[in-house]
Amino acid sequence: MIVRVDTAVNPQSELPQLHQRLQTHLEQLLPCGQQADQVRAAMRAGTLAPGKRIRPLLLLLAAHDMGCDSRQPGLLDLACAVEMVHAASLILDDIPSMDNAQMRRGRPTVHCEFGENVAILAAIALVSRAFEVIAVAPGLAAQRKSDAIAELSAAVGLQGLVQGQFQDLHDGAHARSAEAIELTNELKTSVLFRATLQMAAIAANASPTVRQNLRSFAQDLGLAFQLLDDLTDGDKYTGKDRHQDQGKSTLVAMLGAEGAERRLRDHLRSADAHLACACHRGMATRQYMHALFNQQLARRN
Amino acid sequence: MIVRVDTAVNPQSELPQLHQRLQTHLEQLLPCGQQADQVRAAMRAGTLAPGKRIRPLLLLLAAHDMGCDSRQPGLLDLACAVEMVHAASLILDDIPSMDNAQMRRGRPTVHCEFGENVAILAAIALVSRAFEVIAVAPGLAAQRKSDAIAELSAAVGLQGLVQGQFQDLHDGAHARSAEAIELTNELKTSVLFRATLQMAAIAANASPTVRQNLRSFAQDLGLAFQLLDDLTDGDKYTGKDRHQDQGKSTLVAMLGAEGAERRLRDHLRSADAHLACACHRGMATRQYMHALFNQQLARRN
Repeated sequence: MIVRVDTAVNPQSELPQLHQRLQTHLEQLLPCGQQADQVRAAMRAGTLAPGKRIRPLLLLLAAHDMGCDSRQPGLLDLACAVEMVHAASLILDDIPSMDNAQMRRGRPTVHCEFGENVAILAAIALVSRAFEVIAVAPGLAAQRKSDAIAELSAAVGLQGLVQGQFQDLHDGAHARSAEAIELTNELKTSVLFRATLQMAAIAANASPTVRQNLRSFAQDLGLAFQLLDDLTDGDKYTGKDRHQDQGKSTLVAMLGAEGAERRLRDHLRSADAHLACACHRGMATRQYMHALFNQQLARRN
Repeated sequence: MIVRVDTAVNPQSELPQLHQRLQTHLEQLLPCGQQADQVRAAMRAGTLAPGKRIRPLLLLLAAHDMGCDSRQPGLLDLACAVEMVHAASLILDDIPSMDNAQMRRGRPTVHCEFGENVAILAAIALVSRAFEVIAVAPGLAAQRKSDAIAELSAAVGLQGLVQGQFQDLHDGAHARSAEAIELTNELKTSVLFRATLQMAAIAANASPTVRQNLRSFAQDLGLAFQLLDDLTDGDKYTGKDRHQDQGKSTLVAMLGAEGAERRLRDHLRSADAHLACACHRGMATRQYMHALFNQQLARRN
């Protein structure tokens, strides 16, 4: 494989443009409908509300670091498909029979705005739309499409988001070992990062070794993220209900804030090492990851 | 295209075997897990409970009628993927915030047995698993995989099941025109039949003309089915809650049972004509369809 590095582009300085391209593409993939089309409105509200777009940005940056041109056909579709699955998972996590949350991204949650049944239907439609977007992506080879769909679908189900949410709901209220909490966190967060990075690798036609390194990177990154999420649970600026984790067995409750932050930094260091093995040349993913964590942790302290 | 007709097999007489093959394959695709794995148990309960398996049988029979060998690699995977999407839609239709049904296929509904949040998670996992099954189907060409996923995903979302369920929930309680009811019925039933038959056509590499005829067939078949479903709403043997449609604007409420049955037979005749244009040689689909409707209608009278 010839690794091309797109030296004309510095993705870190172009983050705002990448963010805007993602937003525009998501808007196009989820167009406005008639006013009566509440499910469509709920899908748009759950997906298009301002967010950090961490997963799709990660996909674009990792693909860049593996030598993809950022305008390679299909790349933006893969990135938006991941964001749709993520948005669907947030809509469902918030409904009354799950976390019963009222606020998300600084706005009323989808079920608060549109009703519970519309929220559930919107989540199903988003998951399905994500696979459709990949299946019909212009300019993406059929083999890459089915490989990407295999990765993404595996991240949703019994080895991924669904199982993570189930474990969190049913075991979160009891005392758990650190290992059990970490396994849940992995299912809730690492597996979608893993699919995201595997989809970047598929687009970049990366080697099996690179793909293995990216899997290890995703594992650490997801665990670091879940720790960050738990650490900021009481904070104002998250746009979510505060103190959702009260009474829940989390690593923060177990290790204390300092211990959890230490563990977070361990995962970041390990993530860094795996990423360096996966992408020797590009630094965009690494820079993005560090900037993001530093910003969030600084905001906290 | 060379149309091969598998004359050694008479699928009509082999329906019990096809049914068994589907059941065995569904079991393999949704294997047992540990006892604590409630979501997996709910997925299995919602999918493996005895059912008529109309959609997957239709896929296998239509593929046969278009010249496919019934053991062609991937065919059974496509059929099972359709059944998983159908099972997911039934689980969701039954939950408290939708139809709040207690019985389905003669057993307690999935949310009654496993709780509402597990039911919702199982539905999401089934939809996702359906796409995964197609994406990793052994022996199916990548182009056929992505074509089949495009058809199936389109049938789930805003132009399909999700929109049909939304319209039914939000408009069903009000007076509606026959056209509005028929449009909802189309979304609730015809679109998944359409995807089912298009997936058979993809497996059989059918011509665009055949595919167009199958679309028209699916349209009529879906409307006939929804009429049958509404006509049998008060009947005991359906295994579902009786009189779910009470107070709902259905074609049966509007046209009376006789008028609705007349319209059903009109749709069946039209379905027949389209099917004859699509598959000149094979008769398996036609025989199956007639036997099924005759049996259900006879049981009713």
